[in-house]
Amino acid sequence: MALNRTYLDWNATAPLSAPARAAMLEALQLPGNASSVHGEGRLSRAAVDKARRQVAALVGADPAHLTFTSGATEASNHVLTPEYRMGRSPVAIGALYVSAIEHPAIREGGRFDPVQVIEIPVTPTGIADLSALETLMAAHDHSLGLPMVGLMLVNNETGVIQPVAEAAEIVHRHRGLLVVDAVQAVGRIPVDITRLDADFMVISSHKIGGPKGVGALISRGEVLMPKPLIRGGGQEKGHRSGTENFHAIVGFGAAAAAMSEDLDDRNAGIGALRDRLEGEMRKAAADVMIHGADVPRVGNTCFFTLPGLKAETGQIAFDIEGIALSAGSACSSGKVGESHVLTAMGRDPQLGALRISLGPDTTDEDITRAVAAFAKIAARRKAQGVAA
Amino acid sequence: MALNRTYLDWNATAPLSAPARAAMLEALQLPGNASSVHGEGRLSRAAVDKARRQVAALVGADPAHLTFTSGATEASNHVLTPEYRMGRSPVAIGALYVSAIEHPAIREGGRFDPVQVIEIPVTPTGIADLSALETLMAAHDHSLGLPMVGLMLVNNETGVIQPVAEAAEIVHRHRGLLVVDAVQAVGRIPVDITRLDADFMVISSHKIGGPKGVGALISRGEVLMPKPLIRGGGQEKGHRSGTENFHAIVGFGAAAAAMSEDLDDRNAGIGALRDRLEGEMRKAAADVMIHGADVPRVGNTCFFTLPGLKAETGQIAFDIEGIALSAGSACSSGKVGESHVLTAMGRDPQLGALRISLGPDTTDEDITRAVAAFAKIAARRKAQGVAA
Repeated sequence: MALNRTYLDWNATAPLSAPARAAMLEALQLPGNASSVHGEGRLSRAAVDKARRQVAALVGADPAHLTFTSGATEASNHVLTPEYRMGRSPVAIGALYVSAIEHPAIREGGRFDPVQVIEIPVTPTGIADLSALETLMAAHDHSLGLPMVGLMLVNNETGVIQPVAEAAEIVHRHRGLLVVDAVQAVGRIPVDITRLDADFMVISSHKIGGPKGVGALISRGEVLMPKPLIRGGGQEKGHRSGTENFHAIVGFGAAAAAMSEDLDDRNAGIGALRDRLEGEMRKAAADVMIHGADVPRVGNTCFFTLPGLKAETGQIAFDIEGIALSAGSACSSGKVGESHVLTAMGRDPQLGALRISLGPDTTDEDITRAVAAFAKIAARRKAQGVAA
Repeated sequence: MALNRTYLDWNATAPLSAPARAAMLEALQLPGNASSVHGEGRLSRAAVDKARRQVAALVGADPAHLTFTSGATEASNHVLTPEYRMGRSPVAIGALYVSAIEHPAIREGGRFDPVQVIEIPVTPTGIADLSALETLMAAHDHSLGLPMVGLMLVNNETGVIQPVAEAAEIVHRHRGLLVVDAVQAVGRIPVDITRLDADFMVISSHKIGGPKGVGALISRGEVLMPKPLIRGGGQEKGHRSGTENFHAIVGFGAAAAAMSEDLDDRNAGIGALRDRLEGEMRKAAADVMIHGADVPRVGNTCFFTLPGLKAETGQIAFDIEGIALSAGSACSSGKVGESHVLTAMGRDPQLGALRISLGPDTTDEDITRAVAAFAKIAARRKAQGVAA
């Protein structure tokens, strides 16, 4: 691959951060079975406990309420189940309500039967429709079990911030549980599980500069917990079996600690770069549509449509120019599909939107190069007469 | 921790091997979302594909039939489900039969209801009782669905090799499916999924010198597959969602490739060390009981009881002498429980057995130190008059 690459796909995955790399290299000296009783095992245990504190601190949670998983997708499948337990008593969840713009890991509904999964619509600005949520909650049949609501804090495609605290008020007034996918929020805006009043929160390591293969399910308490998804040796207090992913957990902890520092300053800088990018894009192509630009967004994301440019074509064109970006989310083995987020916002998904997402290492020069590539691709599009 | 430690707990976890470490360090240069379409994503995809070939080769499987998971525990929970699909048609599994010495990841029965899980007894030598399996299969009620059998290839505590090919003949004659936990077998004996005639096989990276947090479920074909355990973005052909654990997968591949080389010579050397260890142990304490010594075992494992020495006490005593070993398997947050394997073999689990397990880096000096510690602990035990 050419040396002169510009990586602007941080919402898909962030390169491993220097603190995470350093922590992992040190941890890799240990055999690291954190459940072994001998000295080596105890050192690994202490390192896992430290990481648990570091990650919990990132979302203002009690470390005792954090379960490490293999990632946010597993954490989502773990928390989304009709079978809960309060102590030793079973507690049934009757239906799962998910916003139409959730990530597939939530939208697929985990262990719920598809007929139990109900969609919460989204306004044209890309924000979950709270009046629709209110109506759905009021209509919920409690005889089937509690209602559970899945709402992301920041959308992965548009970067639009969702009204989680307001949703929590509605959900709790109707005696429901709120699950918050905070994968794209942590490290980009301040996140506090108590202030948001979420019952459960899902986060991922590799979106904040930690390694892949690790994430966390965080709960507000320890009383009401989902039936375990992965059973076996009883690690993580029985909530998640399997040898602890020691080295990755340590890297996750270090990445979380680094992300907690200078959060506002760092993101102000990233936001300024993104704003410059969007300003230059509008100059180069006045017809560019930037989705979610009129509502609160995180500062690192720019989700745009250039009329006449298909998502597949656009992604390849930018790749040839040395710019790595995404068409929506990166899942399903490289398929470049339609965006369910655009559809939920009432746009034509065929519009073909592209996502540029920045990170802490993004430089002014990266933006300059992205703008140049954008201008070139936009001009070629005009030359071909696809759009005015 | 003191510098002079002797790590003899390779069945709990193996230190990261040099080839795995080198491959991971190289992979860590890439952002590595293997499902991204851009250049960086395609490089990651190619590296994942290479690792898939390397790991599949370790067990003689078709790489197309290998699904990467977060470890053997997840792979076990994935494969152990009453809900299968053949193409688009559902196929029911009516009951799960597991040997009494399976690892908890299999014994817990995954997604089967506990009443659907039936135990296959084990002979006093620690080998699954095939005549009992024959009886159970003959009595299986096919109106409930197919029978599924879980049998490990090598027991993690005793190292005893199980008659998997013979079991496969019985299971298949009764139109059942055989799931083989080969976690402790790969790298220690030649493993070939076709020769063993297993329908599914579960393996783990961190037991063979790869990183933690990754394992694999291998199937003989692609037609009959379990309902996915983790749903979302549709990675791994839809069998296992979640961003591919890229760096760990690459490390797993490198570890598998290294393990495939010189398998017989390496294990002959390890076996000679283990045999010397056991010979010296018998000299130092004539009453030491070595479990499984009279039947085929892998060459790296020594599971022993020193009468009068409790497992907890023994483990701590060896730890103080600088020797890391286990009391049975390392799970459940450091609990030192009774051995279900000893119980299944008809022994008193209170006997308190300890496990020494060797690896490719174990040296003659490690064995000398282990023998010295053993002799010291055995002598102290006699001095205290606990046992003759």
